[in-house]
Amino acid sequence: MTHKSNPSEIKTYLKTISIFKDCSDSFLAKISANAQCQIHKKGKILFVHDDTIERFYIIKSGWVKLFRETLDGAQAVVDILDNHHVLGEIAIFENNIVPYSAEVVSNAEIISLPLANLKKEIKNDNQLALNMLKSMAHDRRRKDKEIEHRTIQNAPQRIGCFLLRLIDQNQKGPVTIHLPYDKTLVAARLGMQPETFSRALSKLRDETGIRINGATIEMESLDQIVRYSCAACSSNFPCQDLKTTS
Amino acid sequence: MTHKSNPSEIKTYLKTISIFKDCSDSFLAKISANAQCQIHKKGKILFVHDDTIERFYIIKSGWVKLFRETLDGAQAVVDILDNHHVLGEIAIFENNIVPYSAEVVSNAEIISLPLANLKKEIKNDNQLALNMLKSMAHDRRRKDKEIEHRTIQNAPQRIGCFLLRLIDQNQKGPVTIHLPYDKTLVAARLGMQPETFSRALSKLRDETGIRINGATIEMESLDQIVRYSCAACSSNFPCQDLKTTS
Repeated sequence: MTHKSNPSEIKTYLKTISIFKDCSDSFLAKISANAQCQIHKKGKILFVHDDTIERFYIIKSGWVKLFRETLDGAQAVVDILDNHHVLGEIAIFENNIVPYSAEVVSNAEIISLPLANLKKEIKNDNQLALNMLKSMAHDRRRKDKEIEHRTIQNAPQRIGCFLLRLIDQNQKGPVTIHLPYDKTLVAARLGMQPETFSRALSKLRDETGIRINGATIEMESLDQIVRYSCAACSSNFPCQDLKTTS
Repeated sequence: MTHKSNPSEIKTYLKTISIFKDCSDSFLAKISANAQCQIHKKGKILFVHDDTIERFYIIKSGWVKLFRETLDGAQAVVDILDNHHVLGEIAIFENNIVPYSAEVVSNAEIISLPLANLKKEIKNDNQLALNMLKSMAHDRRRKDKEIEHRTIQNAPQRIGCFLLRLIDQNQKGPVTIHLPYDKTLVAARLGMQPETFSRALSKLRDETGIRINGATIEMESLDQIVRYSCAACSSNFPCQDLKTTS
């Protein structure tokens, strides 16, 4: 469902996206004029890996899953991203071929923009190139951290780490966390089978005293989870490496 | 051990590095004049994660391990790289703080260059920024693939995949593969405990009929490993995604 896209509203939103910071007004006006803003339902596939794409996407609200799938249907979730994240822009360096699939996993408002505009501008605007480099450097740190955690942390520790990344890590006292999407998807995001996730969540509860009530998790303070999960991590708490904010 | 670094020889070598492709002659001359070429022994630590660094590195020969370590000494190997790879350059986007540690794992010839030169030039030379973006996009694809494989492939399949990446995938007939570094390090690179690696290698042998003799692995053709490992991968064989060449 496309809803009316007001170029000037879109332009204002694009200015809040890190890769467009300090970009020329004329470029932002041009790319906004060619933008579409659409509300997509859960389940909508934006693109499939190894497709040639013409447009890239920015999440305005909701969640989008990035994944790859084998011919047998086994799926690896590479990431799950929320607002302000850019999807598919990386295709400009790969002959417009996108290296992952993207599926809307909760109703989402998504802006699509022509890849050609971005591809042309990046050759002229060094600021845009530097912004993208900075964003990719940050992304690389997150990926390295993901590989580190899959190597060093056990399953309950990884769930604890996932929870810590959902909240303001500087808060004191009792904390309530709501899972942002369903548990099967959290399991997939963490590379676990649903049964493994379920067992690991129980173990995390036993180790840290958290209370689990459906998608809501409560605890007296962050201390227990920090002590349990961050012991198996090379970064200091509060951590920067895994924030999804690009 | 520093050995005489001839700036003009270094400049010639830098031209073969993808991030310096088509860069201005004056920049290459300047950065080469400030370069050092050193031979380092196995075990030499080039830098430690979260250090502020002044120089970045290019591997001319040998292998270098990138890793992060917890306070308890648990280590996650993020990558193991060989010649033509650039290390630490990413620090220019992170206030000169490097996000991983680097250790020489076989005697290696390594060029070091001032980070300040790179940081200054990237603001002026859009070609350099685009080269780095392309290299980081490629790197991101490799990281996503790594996460995919850790999700979908079992341990023997991952070893098979690792072997396929060491060789020319288009060759026909019998194949002999030499492991590039010792088995403990291959295990660490794949995020496995040495015992897991050992059991998984035996299982791979049983499933595919390869012959293992120390660090040498022989097979009648690549077909068996391809059938066994690539079934649990979303890319087609021959694959591009995991080549270490940047």
